[in-house]
Amino acid sequence: MGKNQISFITGGTATSPQGFRAGATCAGIKKKAVPTLDLGILFSEVPCVVAGLLTTNKIQSAHISLCRERFQRGRAIALVANSGCANACTGEQGLADAAEMAERTAQAIGIEPEDVLMASTGTTGQPLPMKLIRDGINQIILSRDGGHELARAIMTTDTVPKETAVAVRTGNSEFTIGGIAKGSGMIHPNMATMFCFLTTDAAVELEFLRTSLRQAVDISLNMISVDGDTSPSDTVLIMANGMAGNELITRGSPQAETFQQALEQICVYMAKALARDGEGATRLIEVTVNGALSIADARLAARTIVRSPLVKTAVHGADPNWGRIIVAAGYSGVEVVESKIDLDIGDVSLLKRGKPVPYSAQDVVRVFEQSEVPIRLNLNLGTASATAWGCDLSEEYVTINSKYMT
Amino acid sequence: MGKNQISFITGGTATSPQGFRAGATCAGIKKKAVPTLDLGILFSEVPCVVAGLLTTNKIQSAHISLCRERFQRGRAIALVANSGCANACTGEQGLADAAEMAERTAQAIGIEPEDVLMASTGTTGQPLPMKLIRDGINQIILSRDGGHELARAIMTTDTVPKETAVAVRTGNSEFTIGGIAKGSGMIHPNMATMFCFLTTDAAVELEFLRTSLRQAVDISLNMISVDGDTSPSDTVLIMANGMAGNELITRGSPQAETFQQALEQICVYMAKALARDGEGATRLIEVTVNGALSIADARLAARTIVRSPLVKTAVHGADPNWGRIIVAAGYSGVEVVESKIDLDIGDVSLLKRGKPVPYSAQDVVRVFEQSEVPIRLNLNLGTASATAWGCDLSEEYVTINSKYMT
Repeated sequence: MGKNQISFITGGTATSPQGFRAGATCAGIKKKAVPTLDLGILFSEVPCVVAGLLTTNKIQSAHISLCRERFQRGRAIALVANSGCANACTGEQGLADAAEMAERTAQAIGIEPEDVLMASTGTTGQPLPMKLIRDGINQIILSRDGGHELARAIMTTDTVPKETAVAVRTGNSEFTIGGIAKGSGMIHPNMATMFCFLTTDAAVELEFLRTSLRQAVDISLNMISVDGDTSPSDTVLIMANGMAGNELITRGSPQAETFQQALEQICVYMAKALARDGEGATRLIEVTVNGALSIADARLAARTIVRSPLVKTAVHGADPNWGRIIVAAGYSGVEVVESKIDLDIGDVSLLKRGKPVPYSAQDVVRVFEQSEVPIRLNLNLGTASATAWGCDLSEEYVTINSKYMT
Repeated sequence: MGKNQISFITGGTATSPQGFRAGATCAGIKKKAVPTLDLGILFSEVPCVVAGLLTTNKIQSAHISLCRERFQRGRAIALVANSGCANACTGEQGLADAAEMAERTAQAIGIEPEDVLMASTGTTGQPLPMKLIRDGINQIILSRDGGHELARAIMTTDTVPKETAVAVRTGNSEFTIGGIAKGSGMIHPNMATMFCFLTTDAAVELEFLRTSLRQAVDISLNMISVDGDTSPSDTVLIMANGMAGNELITRGSPQAETFQQALEQICVYMAKALARDGEGATRLIEVTVNGALSIADARLAARTIVRSPLVKTAVHGADPNWGRIIVAAGYSGVEVVESKIDLDIGDVSLLKRGKPVPYSAQDVVRVFEQSEVPIRLNLNLGTASATAWGCDLSEEYVTINSKYMT
């Protein structure tokens, strides 16, 4: 049996795993001066086992309930996705439009509508422009490196596409996991997040795929925040087509652990890519909370800090106002005892057991000016840890969101 | 018996009620080029019954625990307050400094330290500059219209002082309630809020004063949000000195209801003044949620909407992106059914029972450009209502908080 190996593939994307093809088109849903990719399809040559997580917002894009049905069946062959319109707050017309989007895609490919997943992102409260979508679907050409196009087609205010893949070798098996994702505002996922579409050629049993995805998302995509607003469109899914020919991965099977590790690595990669490209962001903030009483406490404290507008603006301005980090932990709702806290910003120690450590403000400024700002808090109450990712809050965030529609 | 009457007093402040005096000085705690008021004292000629509410943040300014002791006793004669330094995250030295601040004030006035309340606001993680505070306390001159000076001395990033008073006539009694408050960042109160110091010359029984204050704060100061960050210094208190000579107000007594109404009016006035002057704010946003299943649901939904960075930026840019309001209600955690929601922005109806109503975007822009932006959501599920206040999110908020210390 060979050594387990997980390695990121240069130029990897959602079509890196065997048997996946994708394509996209400029359908005109995004009203831009220059034609922009805004509608795309992902397709597997053979039917996939599929698992997914959807937004917990009670207001939901129309595609959410249709995806939920398909996730329950656990099977899909294709995915159609658009940007420029979230098809949310659109009532029954929205549901009919989402269903038609799946039907038209199924017709174009020659499969059943039940095997088509769908996802819409963009402005809420406006109906899908169905004529553009009908025409667009028929223009899409699927190819083996079409993942790159699809990654661009789902972008809204994202400044860069998010895509990657890992090659996994475990025992005698070799398989690939790939994926694409989009942000970059209304990002405060809860049980699921924005869009993250993952693919693998590994053969994976449905129940294990579901558990594995949930576990990976809990430590990655569920641990980021750009602005504290949970979107009604959040959709994470993984399609596994089995074309790698490996022995079926199930709970406790020889390859299960390596598969899980690989999935977690790719999800953490996507989480950091999304946080780094948050609307208006200039820096990635990584908050690690150690010594919490429970994992739930550690996660809540880390996410609360990374969400705090005052922490985010301090990092943005490289203002060494570290008290705001402690204050955010204090209101997070988790158990915190001031006299026990250690705080480090990068390599600078600021608090040791609640006592201020003499430090140079200039050293904190230096860390805040880095492209990645690590903040570590030890509550010294228990043994639980968690890491959350976010970004600084800039004037640009306000400017982007003051003019989203106009 | 005369008619009950509550009327706002032009130029009213915390020293409008009989027997209160105040004063302030430029102690140098705020490091400004121009000398700025930053330390002040409020004093009652006779001992007061006192009730208060304090931050629920687990990280607390040093004055919080000392105020808690005094609120338990329910008695005070004076209050000393400073801006420029919150005396938070300062450990045991902070507690000793806060205690000394009370002692020095007691000495200067000739009373016991236990009768002195204290409050500090400003930067966290830095010790109180005790030499400046000792010198400053001895410079303060108390006067009958010193409330205006005190209102300025507690300002941090506030652009205007917040102060008012109401004259109350009920039965054969006449009394006055006055107050001052400060914001304007780290504002997302929970059980208490920022600073709001209220005074009255009414004679009020301690238990009733406590209940009455809590009830008034729950619908006013606890219903505002500037940035979602709960401060470690939040302090609301009321000092009642009885000099109006009215019959003691107790639970169920003839004047209780009018006192309660007057207190609520003054607290709502302060809440709106604080929200309107939020850091970088250009507009007041008033969100009313009707038809919720419970008061708790109505409050949570209203506060979630008013806190949403995406709603706040849309109002700032007068971008008619109304879907964000519905989406925020959706993730607030309260029961929401999309097909039942009514949404109105000012006089513009946007959703009726979940169905979009034809509207002119220009009409929404007109409302968003007003200095007060009323948003009304009817969930049509129950009978509970609540109103929350907040402000738009501007580039200026980011600029202010990127450079708070530097």
